[in-house]
Amino acid sequence: MSFKEELVRQASLVDKALNEYLPPAGSYPSVIHEAMRYSVFAGGKRLRPALVLASAKAVGGDEKKVLPAACAIELLHTYSLVHDDLPAMDNDDLRRGRPTSHKVYGEAIAVLVGDALLTLAFGLLAGLPQTGPLGTGGVVHVITEVAEAAGTAGLIGGQVVDILSAEKLVDKQTLKYIHSCKTGALYRASVRVGAMISGASPEQLNKLTVYAENLGLAFQIVDDILDIEGDEQKLGKPVGSDIKNQKATYPALHGLSGAKEMARQAAEQATGALYHFGSEADFLRGLIYFVLQRDN
Amino acid sequence: MSFKEELVRQASLVDKALNEYLPPAGSYPSVIHEAMRYSVFAGGKRLRPALVLASAKAVGGDEKKVLPAACAIELLHTYSLVHDDLPAMDNDDLRRGRPTSHKVYGEAIAVLVGDALLTLAFGLLAGLPQTGPLGTGGVVHVITEVAEAAGTAGLIGGQVVDILSAEKLVDKQTLKYIHSCKTGALYRASVRVGAMISGASPEQLNKLTVYAENLGLAFQIVDDILDIEGDEQKLGKPVGSDIKNQKATYPALHGLSGAKEMARQAAEQATGALYHFGSEADFLRGLIYFVLQRDN
Repeated sequence: MSFKEELVRQASLVDKALNEYLPPAGSYPSVIHEAMRYSVFAGGKRLRPALVLASAKAVGGDEKKVLPAACAIELLHTYSLVHDDLPAMDNDDLRRGRPTSHKVYGEAIAVLVGDALLTLAFGLLAGLPQTGPLGTGGVVHVITEVAEAAGTAGLIGGQVVDILSAEKLVDKQTLKYIHSCKTGALYRASVRVGAMISGASPEQLNKLTVYAENLGLAFQIVDDILDIEGDEQKLGKPVGSDIKNQKATYPALHGLSGAKEMARQAAEQATGALYHFGSEADFLRGLIYFVLQRDN
Repeated sequence: MSFKEELVRQASLVDKALNEYLPPAGSYPSVIHEAMRYSVFAGGKRLRPALVLASAKAVGGDEKKVLPAACAIELLHTYSLVHDDLPAMDNDDLRRGRPTSHKVYGEAIAVLVGDALLTLAFGLLAGLPQTGPLGTGGVVHVITEVAEAAGTAGLIGGQVVDILSAEKLVDKQTLKYIHSCKTGALYRASVRVGAMISGASPEQLNKLTVYAENLGLAFQIVDDILDIEGDEQKLGKPVGSDIKNQKATYPALHGLSGAKEMARQAAEQATGALYHFGSEADFLRGLIYFVLQRDN
């Protein structure tokens, strides 16, 4: 199976599970359940859940066992997008070519959609199988890991600093903080929970963590580059908004070629971290090139 | 120790623990940690955490063991207030006589404060002691219970229906749904997790659940009555806003004396549910009268 076929297979596995885990669109009060599904099934690439499944596989684990965790991470990612898009935050009307949640359902419901996805994510994690290498203690450990990644030392902290930095020229260190929190924390948590649930050794866990941090960094730099060099139609959103909004980005602080070199180096670090893994980690390797070469 | 002294003792225990569990106000990025503390230490009565501690005591448990759960429930309650006060929701400028979070820190930070408190709540639950009657399986069970109470079948569902019902004349059944979700779900979860962690029997758990549901109902009815008959100075907010906003309330749908009779009946049900408990449940009994007679 090619890398792309495997990515499609994983995404469809995750979509099927998400469809099962999310309350039915018709269940009372239906507007919130409809709105949750609208944002979850909005054509996301499912990269984070793919990381959960693939890191489980890389350490010899069973992807079915980590599926609730993969879905939980995707719900967290979706919640953060819904709240980030709010008028009080980034005020975005479009996401992946479709109107954002608050444009369709109104601001109040959009706030509650984010809250509900965040809450459901923890509910799913608590439903992880309590058998296997880590047992119930492991489930609790996984929940702690995710709560930290999603909290003010992770996802939320990154968004706070991002908001405070709006229209300011931030330094390289602040930019690094924003992205290691906003993107890095969930990438990191994805590989770590996938590996933890599958009984990874501390050594494997460390290597996968280095892999994820560098993959997240490469992803973010490419994101910034696409906002300059990307194709609006493929991206499903207008380009040039970062420059228009005077947003601190890797190209803005390091130059376009400097940013490209940084992405290349991060990809190299990510590849190096997988050195001692066998062919079970080939999908993780493929993901590095996918992230570097993506056009949307 | 009188009931009021015991309530003060519990509140101070909870406040001390919350102070420990919340990130220090100065830790980076400080605005979010300051803002979290601003809303958590806003003079709340700490009734929900008191319920957690007291239900543990009622079944012979140790209040220290349930303290993280008590704090988690208070964080959930605070998150829901911060988000409910947002301009897109109830648009409230004052809460307990102080400016609401978004008035002080802006809307973006207020959204993130709610998100952060919700996330931290689950982090705290994952930190519950994994020893005792329920073990680690119990911790996972507790997290499931809380995620359900806080989700779209609980807290969030109630808020959704409340918003959809704004300026509409809802029927008695809808009013009951809104409050059994918005107030009832967390009251219910409070006694249940306190009792579960302390190794309550299924019989005890059922009785305490009936107690909490009726206590929550009485609390809500009294809330509605205070908006008509209350003293603005003691309440720390203007009265009459429900009538002005044509809000569906118990007095509006059942008449003022009908609502008072309902509160009395709920209190009687709550008292009856504690019949087989000994003096260890005296605080829970006292809480019924406290809720009925409160003036703020």
